[in-house]
Amino acid sequence: MISCSDLHGFRGLFLDFIGDPFDDFEANCTRFFADGLLVVESGKIKDFGEYRILKKQYPELEITAYPNQLMIPGLIDLHVHYPQTEMVAAYGEQLLEWLNKYTFPTEARFKHQAHAQIMADFFLDELLRHGTTTALVLTTVFPESVDAFFEAADRRHLRMIAGKVMMDRNAPKELLDTASTSYEQSHQLIQKWHDYHRLAYAVTPRFAITSTPEQLVLAGRLLQEYPGIYLQTHLSENLKEIQLTLELFPNNSDYLSIYEQFGLVQSRSVFAHGIHLSDGEFNRLSAAQSTIAFCPTSNLFLGSGLFKLHTSQSLNPSIAVGLGTDIGAGTSFSILQTIGEAYKVTHLQGQAFSGLQGLFLATLGGARALQLDDKIGNFQIGKEADFVVLDLQATPLLSLRTRQALEEKTLEAIADSLFALTMLGDDRMVQATYIMGKPALFATDLGSG
Amino acid sequence: MISCSDLHGFRGLFLDFIGDPFDDFEANCTRFFADGLLVVESGKIKDFGEYRILKKQYPELEITAYPNQLMIPGLIDLHVHYPQTEMVAAYGEQLLEWLNKYTFPTEARFKHQAHAQIMADFFLDELLRHGTTTALVLTTVFPESVDAFFEAADRRHLRMIAGKVMMDRNAPKELLDTASTSYEQSHQLIQKWHDYHRLAYAVTPRFAITSTPEQLVLAGRLLQEYPGIYLQTHLSENLKEIQLTLELFPNNSDYLSIYEQFGLVQSRSVFAHGIHLSDGEFNRLSAAQSTIAFCPTSNLFLGSGLFKLHTSQSLNPSIAVGLGTDIGAGTSFSILQTIGEAYKVTHLQGQAFSGLQGLFLATLGGARALQLDDKIGNFQIGKEADFVVLDLQATPLLSLRTRQALEEKTLEAIADSLFALTMLGDDRMVQATYIMGKPALFATDLGSG
Repeated sequence: MISCSDLHGFRGLFLDFIGDPFDDFEANCTRFFADGLLVVESGKIKDFGEYRILKKQYPELEITAYPNQLMIPGLIDLHVHYPQTEMVAAYGEQLLEWLNKYTFPTEARFKHQAHAQIMADFFLDELLRHGTTTALVLTTVFPESVDAFFEAADRRHLRMIAGKVMMDRNAPKELLDTASTSYEQSHQLIQKWHDYHRLAYAVTPRFAITSTPEQLVLAGRLLQEYPGIYLQTHLSENLKEIQLTLELFPNNSDYLSIYEQFGLVQSRSVFAHGIHLSDGEFNRLSAAQSTIAFCPTSNLFLGSGLFKLHTSQSLNPSIAVGLGTDIGAGTSFSILQTIGEAYKVTHLQGQAFSGLQGLFLATLGGARALQLDDKIGNFQIGKEADFVVLDLQATPLLSLRTRQALEEKTLEAIADSLFALTMLGDDRMVQATYIMGKPALFATDLGSG
Repeated sequence: MISCSDLHGFRGLFLDFIGDPFDDFEANCTRFFADGLLVVESGKIKDFGEYRILKKQYPELEITAYPNQLMIPGLIDLHVHYPQTEMVAAYGEQLLEWLNKYTFPTEARFKHQAHAQIMADFFLDELLRHGTTTALVLTTVFPESVDAFFEAADRRHLRMIAGKVMMDRNAPKELLDTASTSYEQSHQLIQKWHDYHRLAYAVTPRFAITSTPEQLVLAGRLLQEYPGIYLQTHLSENLKEIQLTLELFPNNSDYLSIYEQFGLVQSRSVFAHGIHLSDGEFNRLSAAQSTIAFCPTSNLFLGSGLFKLHTSQSLNPSIAVGLGTDIGAGTSFSILQTIGEAYKVTHLQGQAFSGLQGLFLATLGGARALQLDDKIGNFQIGKEADFVVLDLQATPLLSLRTRQALEEKTLEAIADSLFALTMLGDDRMVQATYIMGKPALFATDLGSG
């Protein structure tokens, strides 16, 4: 019997958050169903609860069953460079040398829209293969590369945020815009893409080193002109970067004050890294309700240092933190693997960080940081049905490690398995990714693979 | 036509070492053939060189071709606990608490030989799936667990070194031996397994905390009685461990001096970790020509600290260093992924560490550390034909990243791809593992899977 309704159900194990496990006991923040039912209608969550109870209300429901799989909300990547996909794992340098030697030549190729289109497709396939359904994405200085990204995201019906890199000094000439062209191009791209379907725009000065004060003034003006847009940039990643930044802005006492001076530090601002922040900078980010994107695989790969997550969470209010893969300085597209590396970075500093805390940052926490928690982040009724099906037994070692948890099916056992996945898993642990209740579309589905 | 000869050839890309890239230019230490031929006879390397030239000498040779795959010598894991396989990624503790909470209960199950046999099979399958062909393996205190391991290794014709854990204090009662029973049991196991086929024995006091002075005296006696055997133990991994150790040995000035006092610091001694060694301890390890097993995934996972590889290599003579996965505190069975994490640990300290240096430690360097470089470690004629076939295109991202290198097929491009594999790869990058020139045997092949 073919159902005429748009209703569809998903049955299996479910885990999501309704509170912040950095503030409260994990059991109070977490919803777990060993046998749950998610009901989706027209791409949104119509109902959610225990299968045994909820099923009675939907006697005719068509159901996709994942009896031994764990469904979680779609993962959110708060910092990633799509044009750097092909240069991941570039050997041997720290930040500034790495930019000059590898990044700038790679980004220069994105003036060709055909190249940008191919790479945007590849990049989004990788995100979806790893369970990431929303990301805050840096493109390049070329507007063509922004169009290519948004077009590819829109064809897949994804909720994505991106922006054109603004960069008018300290980079190769072919990669530079000017203060005025960067303003004009950003302006046009905002008109074209911001709030179009599920897309949103982020004003994107690369970092203070590559923007003149004139350009930063205009970045601030864009934020004022379009209150709903975002700001993304880099902050305090590497010691040499900080030193050069303060040489370029000799009247500023610290790195954050530069962005503050131009009105870039606000509640929709996401700063990547923040490794070497002073206590004063931490406090001001807290007061401004800005977000830090914690990118542990990148911070370890570039030898940048260890982010003080515990400091960010000890403030009042705590600083909103999300996780970033930071491809191509990061070494994995997987936000789950990024949680694993975040654990290592915090544990090395003698601090606790649980798998559930990591998953919170990657789902509801990231959604809150982006002020998108009315739309995504958990299985709340009315939200968009972006979610991920995890196979806890994707490899022989994972099977061995999670076997008992799949017999018990308690929150504690499944949380332990989730932690194991963050350490031992790879893209194979993502069995399926759903966008608005439908299987995610890949380049091959769209005829562009 | 069926060949009556035992000769078999392998054609493809080959990379191995004939020198130490910590001492000399990489190009001087490395052999690379873009189109090479390895000729194997009766499990040993009969010939090795450029295909175009060497093939003329073997007109009838049957050849297995891997045209786009990279063949490297079998990988060597210098520190791994086979009974800890099922407890990898155990959450939230540093060394001493982690031992009590997770490790000891897991190891207690190995008094049952049937369990030990199943886990030995699983463990060896994992090693082979990740390209590891030789390992220095800790078992448990139960002789049954040692027998199970050696039997499983012997059925696969592997070159493996292992030993019974000696532990007569500071652990749960059911896991303790006594000084005299540990001596007797080790003695019998050496008689049974050392130098049997490709197997060798390592005297294995867990660490100074869990052995009385009486037991360490007898460990030293075993080394004197059997000059060809090894010593493996842990050294200076964690600050609390060091503090407790020195409380237990109040007359010793540092950790290493305890092992020295009992004659355990010699050229066939492998010490895991060595993270917090003093300069004096580094110098004495250098003078004794002992080996350190560098276990970066474990050191990050347990928050133990960062091994000073550069210090170990700056001494004269430099300290022999190999790589250890340290499963179950380590988070990957892959020595290639371990190289990637070693890069992060060294880079975080501002030091250089190349993919080729990592591969050296994992092949010829490890073989030299074990004094097995007359038998394994590279493709030198006469050595045993243990090798690994790497698929540089095992995932979409790896394919993108290594595409150009596979067109160029130069040493520089392939070395860069190898580095990318250490960051981005997993067990899928190991297309095949050969033992003595034959495809490795897995539990299913042996009827025990």
